Amino acid sequence: MEAENNGKTSAAYPMNSGDGPYSYANNSISLGVVIDHIREIMIKDISEKLEITPSKPFWIADLGCSIGPNTFSAVKNLIDSVEFKYQSSQETTTTTQSELPQFQVFFNDHTSNDFNMLFKSLPGDRRYYAAGVPGSFYGRIFPDASLHLVHCSFSLHWLSQVPKELRDKSSPAWNKGRVHYSNSGDEVIKAYKAQYEKDMALFLKARAQEIVCGGLMVLISLGIPSGVHHSEAGGNRGFDLVGSCLKEMVEKGIVSEEKFDSFNIPTYLMTPQELETAVKENGSFAIERLEVLPHVKVNGVALNSHQVTFCVRSTLGELIKEHFGEETIDQLFDLYFQKVEEIHPSSIAEAVKTLSFLAVLKRKPIKH
Amino acid sequence: MEAENNGKTSAAYPMNSGDGPYSYANNSISLGVVIDHIREIMIKDISEKLEITPSKPFWIADLGCSIGPNTFSAVKNLIDSVEFKYQSSQETTTTTQSELPQFQVFFNDHTSNDFNMLFKSLPGDRRYYAAGVPGSFYGRIFPDASLHLVHCSFSLHWLSQVPKELRDKSSPAWNKGRVHYSNSGDEVIKAYKAQYEKDMALFLKARAQEIVCGGLMVLISLGIPSGVHHSEAGGNRGFDLVGSCLKEMVEKGIVSEEKFDSFNIPTYLMTPQELETAVKENGSFAIERLEVLPHVKVNGVALNSHQVTFCVRSTLGELIKEHFGEETIDQLFDLYFQKVEEIHPSSIAEAVKTLSFLAVLKRKPIKH
Repeated sequence: MEAENNGKTSAAYPMNSGDGPYSYANNSISLGVVIDHIREIMIKDISEKLEITPSKPFWIADLGCSIGPNTFSAVKNLIDSVEFKYQSSQETTTTTQSELPQFQVFFNDHTSNDFNMLFKSLPGDRRYYAAGVPGSFYGRIFPDASLHLVHCSFSLHWLSQVPKELRDKSSPAWNKGRVHYSNSGDEVIKAYKAQYEKDMALFLKARAQEIVCGGLMVLISLGIPSGVHHSEAGGNRGFDLVGSCLKEMVEKGIVSEEKFDSFNIPTYLMTPQELETAVKENGSFAIERLEVLPHVKVNGVALNSHQVTFCVRSTLGELIKEHFGEETIDQLFDLYFQKVEEIHPSSIAEAVKTLSFLAVLKRKPIKH
Repeated sequence: MEAENNGKTSAAYPMNSGDGPYSYANNSISLGVVIDHIREIMIKDISEKLEITPSKPFWIADLGCSIGPNTFSAVKNLIDSVEFKYQSSQETTTTTQSELPQFQVFFNDHTSNDFNMLFKSLPGDRRYYAAGVPGSFYGRIFPDASLHLVHCSFSLHWLSQVPKELRDKSSPAWNKGRVHYSNSGDEVIKAYKAQYEKDMALFLKARAQEIVCGGLMVLISLGIPSGVHHSEAGGNRGFDLVGSCLKEMVEKGIVSEEKFDSFNIPTYLMTPQELETAVKENGSFAIERLEVLPHVKVNGVALNSHQVTFCVRSTLGELIKEHFGEETIDQLFDLYFQKVEEIHPSSIAEAVKTLSFLAVLKRKPIKH
């Protein structure tokens, strides 16, 4: 099975570079088309690859779910796909409607996530039993062999923590004057990459224990094309600009230099190849699919400075509040807005040399 | 099996009346002793009655969990009991330590419960995977046959809603000038009792579907002794006094008469016999135990007026806010405190002719 999957994998995603067919500036489609594309992949792959005998109940987890509504759409697609699979198989067997599985869906995110809001937003017409699971997906959050289908979308670029070398003033990876790795020296990039590798190993190890043999994991992640240097990735630009703003606030005496120097954003953009390496090292999953997604063009209309500022603030707001205090945040993002206006919002919003990719992994049988 | 259990049941709890050995005024023990007593019962009954082959994972639900810490103590006792059972059985079989089950615990309460607070309070040294499940336990909240052990403590006196007859001005059960059934006419009491019966039937029907055969349900509830009229039950006095306060606020023009007349507290104190009847009517559970708990005397020290007011406010606060608005609540409980001072706190705090009881129910095998 492994040899077969290795073969499939190599064919499943192109070894693209930032200047190749996946530079995307000329390759944008609407968000709706991408969502439909992902939905079609789920239906196809779950139908063909999931190897679970219909059981009651069927356990699904969405990891890094946030508060909705995206998680609810994703879960709906997963359930549609599983039902489609079992309904299709009924046509050729004697399985009856009543033998379709009942679904228990676990919505997971950090303990600090607003689960109250999530629970209040649960769709009234859902066809599943819902539960919230607090905790980091870099550790164990479910019992052994308890999940049939796992989904994790746009969450894996968050590291479990800032690499510890960056918190050590005497380390060559002390990231003075910067808030992220993308424009930093090799030592900082190396520390971020090592943290990513450690985290991804923990993620895959935990999931290998939690997912039943034959179960599937659908991962959708931000990343960068292979061969592109992190400093070139457009997806990191919005964060670099936060660094510039904070630097200015240090110069004006609003933020202390020590606070600034000790602040780093714990995100890392992996390449699809880095994920592939991690999966192979883990050894418990077969890569059924690994493909770069088409780049989304939002209705053909560029984001304005307010929208760009809102996006970055909603992503980093809590992190910044926690480190710099509540009182810093408005001032920081007022400045941020001004800077976006100056340099033009498109230079932040256009994620040049950044990509999104989708992986479908199947839990292999356990060897005895 | 049913005949055997019926036999046990009849012996397991005394047909006490309010004036009998369970009038409790002379029968108080400390809270710690009652907790130890319940813990011992759990260990004994789970050890002897639970008929589940050790499986991984083992699913436990606490229904009406609130935000802790009581739910965490209860869950710890349940897990200790299950582990004790399997460890004991290991001594006579070849089961190894690694074959002890892993526990998935579902904490359930209404969607409006503060799950964020609950998740933040989860014990760091817990030996289980935790999930929150929002929704009323009078409906289905878990898939078929997915739970091995269910616990529900001091929650079943809450009805799913105020009986609908009480919302109809033309009904003989229109509860004018009162906020609860205990001091009302027969029609109101009848409507509350009917609502209780409907709710308990729904509760048992849902659990019968959710609990695996051989699984157990431990219920601890407030109630009244058989033969005691609801107006005599001390446990209702604190609510009646809320009615007196609101009446006074109507007279002063602070609260509208219509708002007052349309407010009713949806709680009902059942007798252990009423629970027994409901379980027999449902037919899916064997009553393994049904016993009245000793009355708790809190450290031999009576509650003062502040403590009594705090207890009633924390129980009814949200309900009152929702009906009368945020602005009413402080004024209402200032008045409440004054009234408790006047009549003496012990007359509210001493739950004369009220009882707590414990039931252990086992899901019977499904007949085909």
